[in-house]
Amino acid sequence: MARIAVDVMGGDRGPAELVRGALTTAAQQPNDIFCLVGDEKVINEEIARVKPAPTNLKIIPTQQVVDMHDSPVDAIRYKKDSSLVKAITLVAQGEADAIISVGNTGAVVAGATFLMGFLEGVKRPGIAIPLPTDNGVTYLIDVGANIYCNPVHLLQYGIMASVYCSSSRQIKSPRVGLLNIGSEENKGNELVKYTSTLLKKSHLNFVGNVEGQDIFKGVCDVLVCEGFVGNVLLKQTEGLFEFLLRTLHKELMKTAVPGQNNEGLQSAGSGTGILGQAVGKLKSLADYSEHGGAPLLGVKGVCIICHGRSEARAFSNALKVATKLVESKVTQSIQQAIQESHLSWFDMLKSWRAHSTNN
Amino acid sequence: MARIAVDVMGGDRGPAELVRGALTTAAQQPNDIFCLVGDEKVINEEIARVKPAPTNLKIIPTQQVVDMHDSPVDAIRYKKDSSLVKAITLVAQGEADAIISVGNTGAVVAGATFLMGFLEGVKRPGIAIPLPTDNGVTYLIDVGANIYCNPVHLLQYGIMASVYCSSSRQIKSPRVGLLNIGSEENKGNELVKYTSTLLKKSHLNFVGNVEGQDIFKGVCDVLVCEGFVGNVLLKQTEGLFEFLLRTLHKELMKTAVPGQNNEGLQSAGSGTGILGQAVGKLKSLADYSEHGGAPLLGVKGVCIICHGRSEARAFSNALKVATKLVESKVTQSIQQAIQESHLSWFDMLKSWRAHSTNN
Repeated sequence: MARIAVDVMGGDRGPAELVRGALTTAAQQPNDIFCLVGDEKVINEEIARVKPAPTNLKIIPTQQVVDMHDSPVDAIRYKKDSSLVKAITLVAQGEADAIISVGNTGAVVAGATFLMGFLEGVKRPGIAIPLPTDNGVTYLIDVGANIYCNPVHLLQYGIMASVYCSSSRQIKSPRVGLLNIGSEENKGNELVKYTSTLLKKSHLNFVGNVEGQDIFKGVCDVLVCEGFVGNVLLKQTEGLFEFLLRTLHKELMKTAVPGQNNEGLQSAGSGTGILGQAVGKLKSLADYSEHGGAPLLGVKGVCIICHGRSEARAFSNALKVATKLVESKVTQSIQQAIQESHLSWFDMLKSWRAHSTNN
Repeated sequence: MARIAVDVMGGDRGPAELVRGALTTAAQQPNDIFCLVGDEKVINEEIARVKPAPTNLKIIPTQQVVDMHDSPVDAIRYKKDSSLVKAITLVAQGEADAIISVGNTGAVVAGATFLMGFLEGVKRPGIAIPLPTDNGVTYLIDVGANIYCNPVHLLQYGIMASVYCSSSRQIKSPRVGLLNIGSEENKGNELVKYTSTLLKKSHLNFVGNVEGQDIFKGVCDVLVCEGFVGNVLLKQTEGLFEFLLRTLHKELMKTAVPGQNNEGLQSAGSGTGILGQAVGKLKSLADYSEHGGAPLLGVKGVCIICHGRSEARAFSNALKVATKLVESKVTQSIQQAIQESHLSWFDMLKSWRAHSTNN
């Protein structure tokens, strides 16, 4: 049995949409418990629409909302009666196993860091985002939890995301790549070159440097990078998806001839017809909630961040993944993997510091 | 009159394609001189096809080719009879005003650095790549010439790309953005935060931090970033373009019904029909040669890098842009802009070093 704390506030579509997603999963998983944290009125209104209402629900009413413009640290400090802080606190106090939120990413990271704490031996938690590829997804880690990385952080990201990937996607020995500006060994800055030596020595299935153009070909299951680069890349991916869809639409409109068949043009916008379905597929690829959301790895408990524009269906899907992660004891497996590689962190860091001072 | 040294070797389509592009521009610009550097036989074969052959050509035969796998520094040192080294040498020795190549980017940078040298006061040259946007292009600088940047390098990139943008696109006061992980002032790592203070103090039209999702909306004309990040981003943009086109094609094939109209599906692959034209437009957007190629800014002379897959038409277009840049004296304008901001480099660097030691 898994107990999932659901922060229903925030998101581009409002809390009712998220509550609907949670109710769908709750109905399908009667043995798990869903704690809906947020605006009591909205939650009850949505529950009233479902007949019969699921009985595996808890409602935790809160008055405050952490919004996108709040400073993460201030939000955690001063908005104690927010859905985000309350939901994280449930996990921190052992009353829930997983927290899921579409809220302010920085505040989720700050809340999980301060309230749940790091697993033993973890230097920095990292966010792993599933990027679509030709044959599934690649988890890019980190995408912004930690913008100052050293090689040990990056190695730990590889270890944690490998375990996550095994748990969530049943991949036995996930292929771990290192994001770099060339595929050859001698390429990149000192951080990636040194990280490469650590990854090679580790027990991970390290497949070497991966360049930007190969990410979407699915050449690895986990792709490690510094948080600054990962965040820029994630947002740029989103921007480029939207740009290409806008351009496609604009070009189709430009060449359309009034009164003729126009090869499915009308159906492209409405989401019907061949072209409309294809465009819809492209749109859904850009939403990482479709792939179970983005886990914050390295904290004590399952913590999942979903996209702000998640629909009920995608959010419901992320809740199912969260349940599976709890059941497969992913947090314990990450803890074990970190501890098994634990002995040499100190030596690694000492050697990196000596190395970077000499360069 | 402009004298353009054209390295016709390299590229995915072979030298004949590039010679054809050069001959087109040569015929259209009879007052400029085009030095075709490379395989004499191929060059003469292509010239023989054109009637009447342009008379504003010089042929510089070379025996060696710098390929994509050559180490840049070794290529410059040991392949002295290569088209790339010879073409760059023409500019270095004052026999040409501009060099254009589709070759090994690292080798072009190394060749321009060692043979042409930096403009006075320039700390590091940078490659500016034109990225497509809703309303034109944004020059992203640097995309890999310099993977270890300090704030003065980034400020100089802003200055040089601003001048380039004014020259090549007749924009009076180009909007300069700083690539960052948030739009707020306090976001990012120390490098971008410190660079932001320098950009604010400069005479540039600095519009602040720009996040990845906004690049393609055309919110700025110049976007400054460290070479490592820029290179990853550039390659990822290319990979994502290809991925989306592959996915679109795959989805269309999946839903196609044999024997029916299929809304222009057949025409998508062949490049005809509404959908085919739109897909063709998307493909051409990804080729930066269409926008005049990528200039290496900060060296003594005009140096343009084109995409390896450039067609004759795109290459011809880049040659026209190179001519205009020579005529508008872009190198002299960059030199002047750098010198006008020159006095305070030393103080800036001293203050940055003190700052980074304290952090």
